[in-house]
Amino acid sequence: MASKNGKLAMLGGPKAVTLQRLDRWEAMTPEMVQRVRQMVEGGDISTQGEKIAQELEGAFAEFIGASYAVSQHNGTSTLWASYFALGVGPGDEVIHPDFTWICSFGPVVYLGARPVFCEIDPKTFLIDPEDIERRITPRTKAISVVHWGGNVCDMGPIMEVANRHGIPVIEDCSHAHGASYDGKRVGTIGAIGGFSFQGVPGRGKPVSGGECGMVATMDRRLYERVLLFGHTGRAGLMDRLQDPAHRRLAPYGFGLNFRPHPLGAAIAQVQLARVREQNEKRWAYVQALNRGLEDIPGIDPLYIYPKAQPAGWYSGLQARYRPEDLGGLPRETYCKALQAEGVNVRAGAYSDAFGPVVGARHIPYHLVPPYSRGFDFYTHGRGPLWEGYEGYAPGDYPQTRQALSRMLQAPVLTDPEEGAVDQMLEGFRKVAENYRSLL
Amino acid sequence: MASKNGKLAMLGGPKAVTLQRLDRWEAMTPEMVQRVRQMVEGGDISTQGEKIAQELEGAFAEFIGASYAVSQHNGTSTLWASYFALGVGPGDEVIHPDFTWICSFGPVVYLGARPVFCEIDPKTFLIDPEDIERRITPRTKAISVVHWGGNVCDMGPIMEVANRHGIPVIEDCSHAHGASYDGKRVGTIGAIGGFSFQGVPGRGKPVSGGECGMVATMDRRLYERVLLFGHTGRAGLMDRLQDPAHRRLAPYGFGLNFRPHPLGAAIAQVQLARVREQNEKRWAYVQALNRGLEDIPGIDPLYIYPKAQPAGWYSGLQARYRPEDLGGLPRETYCKALQAEGVNVRAGAYSDAFGPVVGARHIPYHLVPPYSRGFDFYTHGRGPLWEGYEGYAPGDYPQTRQALSRMLQAPVLTDPEEGAVDQMLEGFRKVAENYRSLL
Repeated sequence: MASKNGKLAMLGGPKAVTLQRLDRWEAMTPEMVQRVRQMVEGGDISTQGEKIAQELEGAFAEFIGASYAVSQHNGTSTLWASYFALGVGPGDEVIHPDFTWICSFGPVVYLGARPVFCEIDPKTFLIDPEDIERRITPRTKAISVVHWGGNVCDMGPIMEVANRHGIPVIEDCSHAHGASYDGKRVGTIGAIGGFSFQGVPGRGKPVSGGECGMVATMDRRLYERVLLFGHTGRAGLMDRLQDPAHRRLAPYGFGLNFRPHPLGAAIAQVQLARVREQNEKRWAYVQALNRGLEDIPGIDPLYIYPKAQPAGWYSGLQARYRPEDLGGLPRETYCKALQAEGVNVRAGAYSDAFGPVVGARHIPYHLVPPYSRGFDFYTHGRGPLWEGYEGYAPGDYPQTRQALSRMLQAPVLTDPEEGAVDQMLEGFRKVAENYRSLL
Repeated sequence: MASKNGKLAMLGGPKAVTLQRLDRWEAMTPEMVQRVRQMVEGGDISTQGEKIAQELEGAFAEFIGASYAVSQHNGTSTLWASYFALGVGPGDEVIHPDFTWICSFGPVVYLGARPVFCEIDPKTFLIDPEDIERRITPRTKAISVVHWGGNVCDMGPIMEVANRHGIPVIEDCSHAHGASYDGKRVGTIGAIGGFSFQGVPGRGKPVSGGECGMVATMDRRLYERVLLFGHTGRAGLMDRLQDPAHRRLAPYGFGLNFRPHPLGAAIAQVQLARVREQNEKRWAYVQALNRGLEDIPGIDPLYIYPKAQPAGWYSGLQARYRPEDLGGLPRETYCKALQAEGVNVRAGAYSDAFGPVVGARHIPYHLVPPYSRGFDFYTHGRGPLWEGYEGYAPGDYPQTRQALSRMLQAPVLTDPEEGAVDQMLEGFRKVAENYRSLL
C-alpha cells in the first residue's frame, strides 16, 4: 500500500497520525486509589515484610512459576541481593552486556567485584551468546543477562555455555514480566532473577508501583541468602531459614533493610492482577506493527529468537534503522521526520535524560569513564576498579557500538485506538517513500 | 504522696491506670490521606528525585539547619551512604556502640570494613565517650554515634576526641529528629548524619512516612559522594556536582538507586510540618514523668547530658531499674506488675520481636554470632569478618551488659489525656510500695 500523501509533515504536509490519542488503556485504576486510601487511613503503611509484601510475593511467584519470591524497594536492590546470593565478592568478575541500564551491573562494584562487558547481538540488542564464552576467566562468578525492553535473551545457548563452565546465570527481568523462553518464564531459567516494579503504571515497568521490586528463584539456598542480605527485622525471618549455616545468623541476618514501601507494593499488586491482559494486548500490538514494518524500507523490526516469547515491554519497542535503504539519511533526521508525522520514534534508550557525554548518544558502558579508566571507589586507592584494573579502549566492542548506532525505539501501545497502528505504519511509509526530500 | 490502694493489680487489686486511652495525639491526619490520594490519582508516584523529594529535602535541611539533605528509601541506606561518603572501605574500622539497632552499623560490613564495638554509658545507654579513645587504632576511619531513643550523645567530649585524632563522626539520628546539643541540631554536629523516616506516624520514627529516610551534612564533598553512591538517574545529578573528580563520573554516578517512594515522602512531609509541636509536647510529657519518678524507689529516670536537648523519641522512654531498692525483685516481675497496673513498661529494646537468642534478652552485638565468631560474608573465605578476624569474648563489654540488664522502657506519649501522667506515676508508686508481696 502506497502512502496517500507524499508531502512530509516535517516539510509542511499533513500528519500521518491524526488520532488525538493512540492508546485507550487505563493504566492507573480507581482500585489503586482505593487501596492506597484505605491503607493510609488505617495507618497500614509500614510492615515487617508481612501482609501486603507477602501477598505480592505469593501472587508474583505464582505468575512466573517461581518457587520463591522476595519483594524489595526497587529493582536495583533485587539484583544486588541476587549477585550477593550467588556469592559475588572481591576478586570476582561478572559478565554483563555492554549495553543496558547501569543499575543492572552497578551492584557488582558495590560487592567489590568487576563487571566484564560482553558484546550484544545487533539483531536484538541483547547479550550475544557467542561472545559470552570468550569473556569467561577463572574469576568469572556469574553471567548476567538482561531481557532488555521485554525481548528475551537466547537462553538456550546461554545456559549451555553457563552449565558447561559451571557458572550461574542471573536474569535482569526488569522489562520483561511474564516473558518466557521455551515455555519457561524469565526469572526462573537462570539461577536467580531480579524484577523492577519502578514507575507509573502504563508508562513504567510492566508491573509498577512507583518504587518496588522482586527477586525470584527456584533455589532455596539463594532465597535464604537474599533474606539474610537485606531483610533484617522481617517478621518470621528465622523460620524461613533451613540451612544451619544461615540459621547461625539469628536473629538479624546481616543487618540491612531492602523492604518495599507498602503503598508501592499495593499499587503493584493491583497492577499484577492485570499484567496477563496487558501482556496479551501489547503482544498483539507488537505483532501488528512489526508485520507492517516488514515491507517498509529503512527499518527492520525487532528480531525475536525462535523459542522466545517476549512480554512486559519497557523503554519502547526496539527496531533497527537501515540508512542504506534511505540514501544514508541520518538516523536523527529519520526520527524527526517520523515525530513530525506523529509517530514517536526515538534514536535509542535512556539517552535523552543525560545528553551526550563521550560523543555518543547511547553509551556502551566500556566508554563510560569510571569503567573505561577505573575509579577509586572507597578512596585511598581501593576498590575493584582501581588496583590492577586495565579498563577498556574505545574500540573494544565494535559490534555493540555498531548496533547502538542503528537502534530505534517506537512507542509500546497496550490497547491501541481503532486505526492507530495503520496511521503509524502510514507514517513510516511516508518517510520511506519521501526521504529524498530530506537529503 | 503515698499510693491510694495497696493491693497490686497483678494480685487482683484495682488498676492504677483507669483511663481508656492515654494519648489524644492524632498521628495520621486527613491531610496525609488527601495528599496521597491526589498523587495516586495524578499518577505522581515516581520521580527522578525532583518534586516531592526536593521539597522534603529543603524542608528538612531548614528544620535541622543542615547545608545539604538527601532523601532516601530508608534510614539504613542513609547510614550506608554516609559511611561511603566518609570513605569507609575494606581494611577500615568503625567505632560503634555495642548496643543499638543492627542496621546502624550493618552497612559497615557491606563496605568491606569492620565495626569495632564500644561500651555504652550506663546512665544513658549511649556511646561512652571515655571508651571511644581506647578503641581507636590506625585503621579507625569513623566514629559512629547513635542518639538512641531521642536522647543525645555527649557530643562535646566525643567531638574533642574525634577532632584530636582527626577521625570523622557519623551521627545516627533515626530516633532524634530535632534534638540538639549545645544549641546545634543532631545531624549537623558530626561530619554527616542519617535519619530514618520509617514507621507509622505516632508510633514510628519521629518523622515517618512508612519507609523513607534522609542524609544531612554541612560538607559539600560528602553531599556529592552521597549523590554519587545512590542517586543514579536523579534529575540534574551532574549539575549538583562541583568537585572535578566527581564530575568525571558523569552521567550516572556509581550506579545504584536509593531514592524514596514519593508516597512515603509525601506522608513524611506532612508530618515534618508538625514535628516541632510534637517535640514540644513530648518533651513536656517526658519532663513531667521523669520529675515524678525521681522520688519513687526502684527506678532512675533517664539521665540527660548537661548540654543535651533530647527530642524526637522512639523505642520508648528509657529508664534504669534499681532492683536493690526492691529487695532484688527481678526486672521481669517488676515490668509485669507495672503492666498489670496499666503502665506499659518493658524490659529493654527491640527484644520482643526476636526472643531470647544467646541467653540475654537485649543482645549486645559482641555476643551476636556473626560478630562474636565472624562469618564468611562473600563465601569462599572472604569478607571483613573472616580472614584475621578475632571476634569477641562474652566478657568483653561488662559495662554494656550491666547497663542493659537494668534497662526499662516506658511509653512516650505526645498529648497525654488529663491525669494520664498522674495515673502512670501512681502505678510506679504502687509497685514500689508493695513489691514485697511479689517476692
